[in-house]
Amino acid sequence: RQSLKIGMLPADGIGREVLPGAKAAILALGSSIPKTEFIDLLAGFEYFTRTGTALPDETVEILKNECDCALFGAVSSPSRKVTGYSSPIVALRKKMDLFANIRPVKSVSVNPEGKPGVDLVVIRENTECLYVKQETQTVGEHGKEARATRLITERASRRIGELAFKMALERPRKHLTVIHKSNVLSITDGLFRETVRAVPTLPGVDGKYDDVTVAEQLVDSAVYRLFREPEIYDVMVAPNLYGDILSDAAAALVGSLGLVPSVNAGDSFVMGEPVHGSAPDIAGQNIANPLAAIRSAAMMLRHIGYVDGANRIEKAVDSVLREGKVLTPDLGGKSKTSEVVDEVTRRI
Amino acid sequence: RQSLKIGMLPADGIGREVLPGAKAAILALGSSIPKTEFIDLLAGFEYFTRTGTALPDETVEILKNECDCALFGAVSSPSRKVTGYSSPIVALRKKMDLFANIRPVKSVSVNPEGKPGVDLVVIRENTECLYVKQETQTVGEHGKEARATRLITERASRRIGELAFKMALERPRKHLTVIHKSNVLSITDGLFRETVRAVPTLPGVDGKYDDVTVAEQLVDSAVYRLFREPEIYDVMVAPNLYGDILSDAAAALVGSLGLVPSVNAGDSFVMGEPVHGSAPDIAGQNIANPLAAIRSAAMMLRHIGYVDGANRIEKAVDSVLREGKVLTPDLGGKSKTSEVVDEVTRRI
Ligand SMILES: CC(C)[C@H](C(=O)O)[C@@H](O)C(=O)O
Ligand SMILES: CC(C)[C@H](C(=O)O)[C@@H](O)C(=O)O
Repeated sequence: RQSLKIGMLPADGIGREVLPGAKAAILALGSSIPKTEFIDLLAGFEYFTRTGTALPDETVEILKNECDCALFGAVSSPSRKVTGYSSPIVALRKKMDLFANIRPVKSVSVNPEGKPGVDLVVIRENTECLYVKQETQTVGEHGKEARATRLITERASRRIGELAFKMALERPRKHLTVIHKSNVLSITDGLFRETVRAVPTLPGVDGKYDDVTVAEQLVDSAVYRLFREPEIYDVMVAPNLYGDILSDAAAALVGSLGLVPSVNAGDSFVMGEPVHGSAPDIAGQNIANPLAAIRSAAMMLRHIGYVDGANRIEKAVDSVLREGKVLTPDLGGKSKTSEVVDEVTRRI
Repeated sequence: RQSLKIGMLPADGIGREVLPGAKAAILALGSSIPKTEFIDLLAGFEYFTRTGTALPDETVEILKNECDCALFGAVSSPSRKVTGYSSPIVALRKKMDLFANIRPVKSVSVNPEGKPGVDLVVIRENTECLYVKQETQTVGEHGKEARATRLITERASRRIGELAFKMALERPRKHLTVIHKSNVLSITDGLFRETVRAVPTLPGVDGKYDDVTVAEQLVDSAVYRLFREPEIYDVMVAPNLYGDILSDAAAALVGSLGLVPSVNAGDSFVMGEPVHGSAPDIAGQNIANPLAAIRSAAMMLRHIGYVDGANRIEKAVDSVLREGKVLTPDLGGKSKTSEVVDEVTRRI
């Protein structure tokens, strides 16, 4: 690549405060990555309240036609039912076919509230399950009845399964836990479980995954064990909604959602996204933790091949955390968002 | 009542080891409750593998026609897809119309791994959501496609909401958190959330719930905050699947699923059930913690009016825990199931 175009979608709340930090970290890489252009793009609940659309077509078109990758901030949730609103992040994942949400969670020595020994990655299927948003409401004998469809396909389960096996193989422990609830959802979660487990027997795979140990766990007991013995987990692969819940649960183990990055990844596009939400309670105060967004930028860069750049950003973040002097309040510190960003970029 | 008939459904694994403990605790109450008859009833995955049915009609009929209440042990989950199998506990909740699953979780001083300050109750809707088990599978262009229906009705949401408000009002903090994911499931979880929140405005309610403070939380961040600041929760009300996950998460906070009881309650029947599973890994060793089952028996007795008996059992359990000498391995002890049962019954 001669140049790099990164779509920037801060969206709502602290999304707008942490994305500039991610941009600063990328810029600090200087000439070790191609000349980078950042394209500001519109999306979000606040944008919806002004315009009636949460994700303009133009945003999707620019992402598809002009951008090499993207960063998303966070989106607010309406506090009451709002007709016509639909989450832009859910729509983006689907429209860009970003079928995998990869969420690594690792303990941080600085955090006294965190559990030691956590080093896992949640691989969340990102396009189906209850997120297909096929919902209806009717009125029956006893009042309103609402129904949602939960879709699980062999195709989506297979591609997320392949990614999960691939990632497990790359990690030292090579351990994969398949999360499901097939004791209740025998057909949908049964299909997910069987399809993922069958990945090593796919044509052409030829023993490639022989070194991966596969376990499985019902989602309820997975959350229980995640709190009790997080060290048992390495790679976890889960349908969309379970992955959503599990990654928040795992984030609690390391003491702050403000540390946990992710990428939404497809075959031809990647979008970094901190796992935290828009945090309206702390928005606008310059105290949001920018590290999840900065780490998401690193993950995004690694994904498109800039491994050195990604490593440099991640090492800078780790050293700021290890030193433990410049931290935002969620980590017990007193620093501002911008001070943490400066400290990280100085070390890149 | 002249006499009390209790249906006993040990089902699988450690369910068979903990239910005798619950029976012993009830018998230890002696003449302070009516003459009690225990009726052993068949159900479970093991029973299914022998007979092809997991919940014989006879069991349901005896429960409906002869029993005043019941105790369920735990059910195993098939490790592979098994045609024709359907979870008997899910079926029982529906067939007996046990619409609420009430799961109190409280920190125990004895447990160094538990978090202090946890004192909450999860009220789980028990009959619908994805548990309606309407699943289909078709074959599409790219392979198999499976669909499940998630049903949320106004009627079920209202009755679980009414129970939740009632329970919140009875507790010192009078705080209720409504759990949902209406940022994605705007119709189904939107209906749940609005119906529960509207309970104080129902005809005839007349300011009864004015003292209840109502909050709400998305299920993913609810799990996160449950780990980080469990003390913020008092009563949590949730659709079926979220309640399943949340109660396991809450159990992790107090250090062992082996401590957490529940009742499945309807308008005319109640069935106690420890929150833990059948634990095949430790079954048959006489080391399962019987306290969740014993506490479930107490909850069941309280529910049908035997408050003194329930208190006596609960006090005995609490004193065994406080003393911390006779504990099963899940709590760091070395005692057998039967030794814990003896210790509890001695104190009743
Ligand atoms: C904002 C919301 C739609 C989203 C989700 O549920 O996927 C968020 O919780 C996340 O984890 O990215
Ligand atoms: C065994 C299973 C069907 C059950 C459930 O999901 O309800 C269990 O996890 C529970 O919490 O009682």
